[in-house]
This record gives sequence, structure tokens and C-alpha cells, in this order.
Amino acid sequence: MERVPILKIGDILLVSIQIDMEDQVALQLQEDLADRIVATGCHGVIIDISALDIVDSFVGRTLATIAAISKVLDADTVVVGMRPAVAITLVELGLSLPGIRTALNVELGMEMLARERATDGEDDDEDGVEDTETPAVPTP
Amino acid sequence: MERVPILKIGDILLVSIQIDMEDQVALQLQEDLADRIVATGCHGVIIDISALDIVDSFVGRTLATIAAISKVLDADTVVVGMRPAVAITLVELGLSLPGIRTALNVELGMEMLARERATDGEDDDEDGVEDTETPAVPTP
Repeated sequence: MERVPILKIGDILLVSIQIDMEDQVALQLQEDLADRIVATGCHGVIIDISALDIVDSFVGRTLATIAAISKVLDADTVVVGMRPAVAITLVELGLSLPGIRTALNVELGMEMLARERATDGEDDDEDGVEDTETPAVPTP
Repeated sequence: MERVPILKIGDILLVSIQIDMEDQVALQLQEDLADRIVATGCHGVIIDISALDIVDSFVGRTLATIAAISKVLDADTVVVGMRPAVAITLVELGLSLPGIRTALNVELGMEMLARERATDGEDDDEDGVEDTETPAVPTP
């Protein structure tokens, strides 16, 4: 089975998704990432999806689950590198990746995580916002 | 055709190879990487191969070509994340990745590149060493 590698860069774990997100790969990634967060004590996770042509509801759900797991383990998640075409398709499908923060590229994602760490006193506030502003996701 | 994404982190381009290195993918990666080095002016390239189960002579040659191209464009290349089993197989096959520098993980690779940049006055010396110490690669 293929495995998505997790790279540690300073206080951040970087995941570059390039293979198809099948059930087993997604589950394995969630498990590996949770293990690595605990093992390294990293406070940030960046998931690069620039290699993905398609982000469907399953991938969206997987990303949201990873973000939620990371949050419980005191790590923030940012999804970076989304292609313009992917963003357009997502909105057309009515998927808006609720609970997932995005940045344009890895560097901006790192800046975002550093900013959040600097103001982590307001973390609880943010969580509340994430939950309430979640738009309804129509099932196709 | 699948494409290997290239991530820019500060002064470094990071490539995480996860898909099979077929001819077209390898050629495309070389081209993309050369373009990105020129576009960004980065001085370091890190290639992560922790997802690869097998590194055969073609992959070895591809890595060497990438390192050579980068060098011409004034960027140093470090290959990181090689699995122990891959290292053992490489040596057993008589492949020793001539002209390729390696580090254990991305962080150590970044340190290596930073050190080399700091002492770039001795770059010419290094090149000479790389050329002369290249072991003969027996063709299987």
C-alpha cells in the first residue's frame, strides 16, 4: 500500500498529497500524521494539494478530519496549493471545505501558522467561529 | 500525465517524489525544476525520496541529472529520506549515486545547504572532488 510521506520542517509537518486518496491511504495518513504530531510535538500541519486535479467530497472530508484530529492534538492545519480549477469546481459542487483554512502556497501557510501561534490566546474564539460559519454542504 | 509538485520554502525548492519515475515524469520534473530555479533564484534543491521503495539505476541517473542541472544553475542538490532498505539494495546493485549528496531528513538537508552556502568560496574545490571520486558504475 502506498503511503503519503510526512516531512518535518522546524515546528511544522508538511504533507504533499500526490496519490489518489483512496480509503486506506486516507486512513493511514490520518494515523501517521497523528502519530507524528505526538512524537514530534509539532504545532502546525501544512497539506499541499497542488498535485491534485480533483478534490471531491471524500478528499474534502479527509482534509477536514485531519484538521480536526490535529486540532485535538494542539496543532493547526493549513491546506495550501489549491489549483484555480479545483477551487472553481469545489464551489460549483457546493463544497466549501468547512473548517479548513487555506493559503496560496507553503510559505504563506507557514506565515499563517506562525501568526496563529503568536496569538494563540484567541484560539478558543476561532474555534467557535469555525463551527458556526460552516455552510451547509448539499449532498449531490 | 502526472507531475511532481515543487514547493518553495525560503531559499530552497523541495521536491517529494512519490510516484513512479517513468521517462516522461522524470523529464518533466527536470524541466519544471530548472524553470523554477531560474524563476525563483533559489540556491538549494531538496529531493525527498522517503516514499520510494525502490531506487533503480534510472532513478539514480535522474537524480544525478537533476543535481547536475541545478549545479549549472547555481543551486545545490541534496537527496533526503532514503530508506535503509533502499540504501542496502543500492550498494548491493553496485549503484552508489555518484555526484549526489544525501542527508537523513529534510531538516538536515536544509542545514547542509545552509552550511554550503556559507562556505561557497570553496565550491570549485568541491566540484573537482565530485568528479574524481565518482566510482565506476557497473551496468547490470
